[in-house]
Amino acid sequence: MKIDINSDVGESFGIYTLGNDAALMPYITSANIACGFHAGDPFVMKRTVALALKHYVKIGAHPGFDDLAGFGRKTMNISPAEVGPLMHYQIGALYGIVRAQGGELHHVKPHGALYNMAVKSDVLAEAVVVAVKAFNPALFLYGLPNSALERAAHKYDLPFKAEIYADRNLTDEGMLVPRDASNAMIHDVDVSAEQIMRVIEEGCALSVHGKCIPMRGETVCVHGDNPAAVTFAKTLYARLK
Amino acid sequence: MKIDINSDVGESFGIYTLGNDAALMPYITSANIACGFHAGDPFVMKRTVALALKHYVKIGAHPGFDDLAGFGRKTMNISPAEVGPLMHYQIGALYGIVRAQGGELHHVKPHGALYNMAVKSDVLAEAVVVAVKAFNPALFLYGLPNSALERAAHKYDLPFKAEIYADRNLTDEGMLVPRDASNAMIHDVDVSAEQIMRVIEEGCALSVHGKCIPMRGETVCVHGDNPAAVTFAKTLYARLK
Amino acid sequence: MKIDINSDVGESFGIYTLGNDAALMPYITSANIACGFHAGDPFVMKRTVALALKHYVKIGAHPGFDDLAGFGRKTMNISPAEVGPLMHYQIGALYGIVRAQGGELHHVKPHGALYNMAVKSDVLAEAVVVAVKAFNPALFLYGLPNSALERAAHKYDLPFKAEIYADRNLTDEGMLVPRDASNAMIHDVDVSAEQIMRVIEEGCALSVHGKCIPMRGETVCVHGDNPAAVTFAKTLYARLK
Amino acid sequence: MKIDINSDVGESFGIYTLGNDAALMPYITSANIACGFHAGDPFVMKRTVALALKHYVKIGAHPGFDDLAGFGRKTMNISPAEVGPLMHYQIGALYGIVRAQGGELHHVKPHGALYNMAVKSDVLAEAVVVAVKAFNPALFLYGLPNSALERAAHKYDLPFKAEIYADRNLTDEGMLVPRDASNAMIHDVDVSAEQIMRVIEEGCALSVHGKCIPMRGETVCVHGDNPAAVTFAKTLYARLK
Repeated sequence: MKIDINSDVGESFGIYTLGNDAALMPYITSANIACGFHAGDPFVMKRTVALALKHYVKIGAHPGFDDLAGFGRKTMNISPAEVGPLMHYQIGALYGIVRAQGGELHHVKPHGALYNMAVKSDVLAEAVVVAVKAFNPALFLYGLPNSALERAAHKYDLPFKAEIYADRNLTDEGMLVPRDASNAMIHDVDVSAEQIMRVIEEGCALSVHGKCIPMRGETVCVHGDNPAAVTFAKTLYARLK
Repeated sequence: MKIDINSDVGESFGIYTLGNDAALMPYITSANIACGFHAGDPFVMKRTVALALKHYVKIGAHPGFDDLAGFGRKTMNISPAEVGPLMHYQIGALYGIVRAQGGELHHVKPHGALYNMAVKSDVLAEAVVVAVKAFNPALFLYGLPNSALERAAHKYDLPFKAEIYADRNLTDEGMLVPRDASNAMIHDVDVSAEQIMRVIEEGCALSVHGKCIPMRGETVCVHGDNPAAVTFAKTLYARLK
Repeated sequence: MKIDINSDVGESFGIYTLGNDAALMPYITSANIACGFHAGDPFVMKRTVALALKHYVKIGAHPGFDDLAGFGRKTMNISPAEVGPLMHYQIGALYGIVRAQGGELHHVKPHGALYNMAVKSDVLAEAVVVAVKAFNPALFLYGLPNSALERAAHKYDLPFKAEIYADRNLTDEGMLVPRDASNAMIHDVDVSAEQIMRVIEEGCALSVHGKCIPMRGETVCVHGDNPAAVTFAKTLYARLK
Repeated sequence: MKIDINSDVGESFGIYTLGNDAALMPYITSANIACGFHAGDPFVMKRTVALALKHYVKIGAHPGFDDLAGFGRKTMNISPAEVGPLMHYQIGALYGIVRAQGGELHHVKPHGALYNMAVKSDVLAEAVVVAVKAFNPALFLYGLPNSALERAAHKYDLPFKAEIYADRNLTDEGMLVPRDASNAMIHDVDVSAEQIMRVIEEGCALSVHGKCIPMRGETVCVHGDNPAAVTFAKTLYARLK
């Protein structure tokens, strides 16, 4: 592969199904598995880990807030001191299920509101990094390049992979075009693949106005929650192979 | 110590406090720590693990049903196939918190209804043993002697510690006197200590009618949920030292 | 309508969607709305109540065990004394949301394991009936004919509607053909409609061997969890109009 | 009584006990009962309602965020549109349990972070008031005088009771002395009773520097979570009778 492809998986719960992990897994190389707080349960986790191992996909913990009703997307008050136990519990829980199947944990990517808060706050980002490192300093942290998360990872020497989105357009300032704008998404997988290759080879991405934005990327995030998304992932995988 | 003394701890949750772990911890040698399903939360677990490490108490996972409202005491339908994920999640979660503090897991003791069901059912007991072994075959399983749990541990070569109760009287048949009987409990710590020494030295315990019941015990379970219980544990600890 | 058509709805939760309530609602006359314990949440309930009111569908509470992970299908230990608070909480919660929209509660149908247990146990069935009556003696109870639920409703003079299934075949003994048998389901909506008309007009249903089984039915239960089911419901609705 | 005395009760959960409702109930006139989201469960609610009815205490709903782990004190993102379903569910759930015992709901007092947010935000306060009114426009809202809650209640003609604290000192600006200051609390029940009488009779309260602060109060909030608090409530009750 020219670049790692990651996806959030294992987000079903009980009788409820979200995404199509079985269809997606052949076309990704890193699986961020929900750990039972914002989504997932022990049985979903077991199945998802088995799928990842079957397809030789690297397994990462995807911890979030303890908020199933809000899918971990609700901003909550959290003190830096709470980050450690919150993450150790969830990383450990996934580790338990992975170890029982003879696998290994490879990375951690915080979910939803926890991710968004840690991307902006140095204090929270450092708490995240210190938490991962205390569990296992060899784990990779996946996160936004040039964010508080990346700064904290460098400060504490935790391996870090800069993550770019496969399906989002950028403004001239290098920000994601807001989701409610008509041109927020890249729907054409060829455009997406070119953008990713540009990041890999030239270290920049094109904005919606054709401006070259300096950009690093070591892993690409794809979504798999509808049939079109799986086709997108499949095509992207073939192009980036 | 002449014998290991274990206790169920870490059973507080959020604002709610149960037991007095700080007062009890100096007088036990094995801590069975709740893992967030029937009791406990990541923050309680962190504090409890820190307490155990401070007092050189061996740390065990105390997994139960996902039933905070019923404290894991409600009998539920569970298939053997569900036991593994249920236990791996909880053992792993505690492991995550223990590892982050530089400690190690030593044993597993199922909680409440899960314990009671596994004591009687060979199928469930084997699922419990296989689950523990898949996570780490060096962990001890604590359980009732001569139970399905012990049989399963022997069958799969998992280290096992036979557990006796410090504060419960026995019938002539070697069963616990039911809790609603007036003589269910041993309130006199000297009687309890003598009973335990008899088990250690002579391999038998006295029934309420003075009959000698063959009994093995490698760990004694004490409770710590009220001030009198802590005093009981403290005295027993001194007597068994 | 020649007969009431009921369906279990409002079973989504947070980000998770189950069933297609908007497509189904025009073709039913009674909605059994989940109350947040086995499925549903306050926001799902609000939307479902609004849909029911829009389509002039009678609103019923569909209370179950507090078991989102198991969708209320897991058999649990419950004492008769626990049935009242469990049901009053859930019926009341739905009532709160219905009243805020100017609607009214019409009936109660227990869900999943609670339903299955109350169908067989007179003690539990009476607890269910007494609970409904204490909240509002004018509410209908929907349940299996000739079951403990019906006996209890008659004993306490609670209005009762005998429920038949639109899509299940019967044995010669009048039992449902088990779900794992090849002929468990009626897939042909014409056969289903004829069966229902036979129950209404002749008071009997045909078994898989063509035997006439005495049967009463005042409401028909249809499922709506897949597109084919919605089409089934739509056709049945047209036939029974 | 010269003034209504309210207290937050029913905050136990499952095996966990919080407060001493049985000891407190004889000395209050309004009970704010937790509704199962931040605290309380159907069985605790049933017992608490029974206690309130026995002592002729007016029953109010005390709805909060769905956050048992944080006791509803964690600030969360909530849109005004979410306030209605959140409150209708909880008010209705308590109503279900109250009605089953032949009682009536009298008031609503939001809990914790929901209360603190609604006190400051006109938008949230109006959502709270509109929600209560849609359920029953005759219910009283209890809240801080001169707050967004009071403004919203007046705007929508919802009955409102201004609440003062029995055990908190005030600054010269009429704010509560912060909890971490040495003089935050009024420990002397006589001083507390005098302060309350001053509010009732003279419409003002004394600050810690003896300044007269204009203050209205129609209900006094007392706490009951420790034996000293119950004694305080008992004495205050006797003084205000």
